[in-house]
Amino acid sequence: MPDQFSFEILTKDNHARAGVFYTPHGDISTPVFAPVGTQATVKAMTPAELEIIGATLILANTYHLYLRPGDDLIAELGGLHQFMHWNGPILTDSGGFQVYSLNDIRKINDQGVVFKSHIDGSAHLLTPEKSIAIQENLGADIIMTLDECASPFDRQYNEIAMTRTHDWAERCLSAKNRSDQALFGIVQGGIFPDLRTKSAEFIASLNFPGYAIGGLSVGESKEEMNLMIETVNQVLPKNKPRYLMGVGAPIDIINAVLRGVDIFDCVLPTRLARHNAALTWQERLNLANAKYSRDGKPIEPGCTCYTCQNFSRAYIRHLVMAKEMLAATLLSIHNVHSLIHLMGEIRQAIIEHRIRDFAIKQFGLEI
Amino acid sequence: MPDQFSFEILTKDNHARAGVFYTPHGDISTPVFAPVGTQATVKAMTPAELEIIGATLILANTYHLYLRPGDDLIAELGGLHQFMHWNGPILTDSGGFQVYSLNDIRKINDQGVVFKSHIDGSAHLLTPEKSIAIQENLGADIIMTLDECASPFDRQYNEIAMTRTHDWAERCLSAKNRSDQALFGIVQGGIFPDLRTKSAEFIASLNFPGYAIGGLSVGESKEEMNLMIETVNQVLPKNKPRYLMGVGAPIDIINAVLRGVDIFDCVLPTRLARHNAALTWQERLNLANAKYSRDGKPIEPGCTCYTCQNFSRAYIRHLVMAKEMLAATLLSIHNVHSLIHLMGEIRQAIIEHRIRDFAIKQFGLEI
Repeated sequence: MPDQFSFEILTKDNHARAGVFYTPHGDISTPVFAPVGTQATVKAMTPAELEIIGATLILANTYHLYLRPGDDLIAELGGLHQFMHWNGPILTDSGGFQVYSLNDIRKINDQGVVFKSHIDGSAHLLTPEKSIAIQENLGADIIMTLDECASPFDRQYNEIAMTRTHDWAERCLSAKNRSDQALFGIVQGGIFPDLRTKSAEFIASLNFPGYAIGGLSVGESKEEMNLMIETVNQVLPKNKPRYLMGVGAPIDIINAVLRGVDIFDCVLPTRLARHNAALTWQERLNLANAKYSRDGKPIEPGCTCYTCQNFSRAYIRHLVMAKEMLAATLLSIHNVHSLIHLMGEIRQAIIEHRIRDFAIKQFGLEI
Repeated sequence: MPDQFSFEILTKDNHARAGVFYTPHGDISTPVFAPVGTQATVKAMTPAELEIIGATLILANTYHLYLRPGDDLIAELGGLHQFMHWNGPILTDSGGFQVYSLNDIRKINDQGVVFKSHIDGSAHLLTPEKSIAIQENLGADIIMTLDECASPFDRQYNEIAMTRTHDWAERCLSAKNRSDQALFGIVQGGIFPDLRTKSAEFIASLNFPGYAIGGLSVGESKEEMNLMIETVNQVLPKNKPRYLMGVGAPIDIINAVLRGVDIFDCVLPTRLARHNAALTWQERLNLANAKYSRDGKPIEPGCTCYTCQNFSRAYIRHLVMAKEMLAATLLSIHNVHSLIHLMGEIRQAIIEHRIRDFAIKQFGLEI
């Protein structure tokens, strides 16, 4: 039996890797896409529906769960797996990203971040030690170091934020007590290749069981994103999983896989669903559009998901127009299925050494 | 093989009956509770979830589907079963009740009812012939005659409404073309035993394959409701199913079963779910209540539904407080399961000739 948190690469196809990451709650076949269950629920879906789709890894947000219902409460009730009834692997983020993105009033210094709750305005201090303590209460299989996500374009500030991120990474490592959780380090450095290299070198030196690339998909160009991924992955150890945080558009996923990324997460499929949009690898359909009102076809002909096997575009449009909750559920099922199916096809293509052909044929990439 | 729309009574226990009603989309074991899918969806639930619970008969609302997406569109897409992906039996109402309850501006005379759409204010005329035409487009297994639901307390008006209901029942029968739908007649008469008797006699004389008791559970007392059911069921033919419209509280169901009712429908379980309430046979739990915040027990210990098997009250309360859609889904699953499980237990008790004991033991009825 492989060691817990070991990463086994089955096949490499150029820079793309097909592997398995071993966790206490099951093996994660990579490349993998993790649906996001911000508040301990992947919105509008039951765990049973996620299981049928073939989801393995689920992400939950430390910021939200710390504020409500509270990590102590979740620990008391047996931890996040039992609380949300997800028996597969779970990843929690550090809480940092939401502190930066959901709060106007905050103060950041080397100690940590002071923020006010978006729920009741109460003040809280998030430090590296606090983030680890919360994540240990939640009990996910993969937990993340607290980092600072700076705007990617400000070089001077990115140097400060990077240094702070490195300092916090060491403090997170020291604060960690549980042996049944893998703590991943996070590389920052904005859009600056030299900073990214420096950050990857430092974080890699701390010998984490996995590495994340943070601070991307936040306004930079596709070329910048791809270059940063390439830069970082040249430095990161080859035998550890690499996680590109917050990325979920099919074209971004394939580009990152081609550059050696193994793990992805994004709210995209479920958020689009709640805005009436169906996701395919190539396009997005707005199901509120009148042109679908008498369309008896499934969202995506040939798709094997529960939604496409049983319901027409016309029916889903009706649910959208009638503001029925089932619209979000059926669209979420399709959208999450679409991405998880994509990961399966990507993995198979890597194993068969045809990932470049796959990328060219399915996405028209010029590589 | 039994005739389509024949009703076979397997066991009688006092006035209670355990039977089977045969329809083109499957056999309905009675007594049965039909969850309501107003807009061609049982709110917050997938057909797969309803199937797991053991739902057989589903109700959909003619008024809503006529206005949106339109019965012609549903017919074009293969009918309601295919449209909403419910392959079991479906019942549609006549549209009358919603015209009366959802519209301020309406005019009723012997021809029909003029009403304005609650969606766009457009004017429509609903006649007995129109109601049948819409219901034939929808294609449910059981369809209903257009009736007039008057306030139950006004004797003079109930005489007028009853006479009109009788006239419309005959017109519905004449208008009907499809042979694969069972048209049920509806008895009216408010809270007046002599009117109820007269109405039951007239409607029974038209020889419908099933009979509904309308205009109850609209403000009258439990004693009045029970007396009306007894009065009507003394007249209705014994070998046809009897449907008490719009009733779904467990105590009302058991009282009606004891008086010979076979079919029920109600929005109660799914509406309560969307208002954070869990239904048991005896009580209602408000899951927003702070006392459940750390309660690791399922909603109803011992319950075999997906919700109770896998989720705690604390988790559901968290979903409620966080305004997550999954709260409504999990509560709907439990509530609909609770009523369908009740019907199964009632049926078994009738078959074993212990329905009185069941009613006394489970509901404390003094009979």
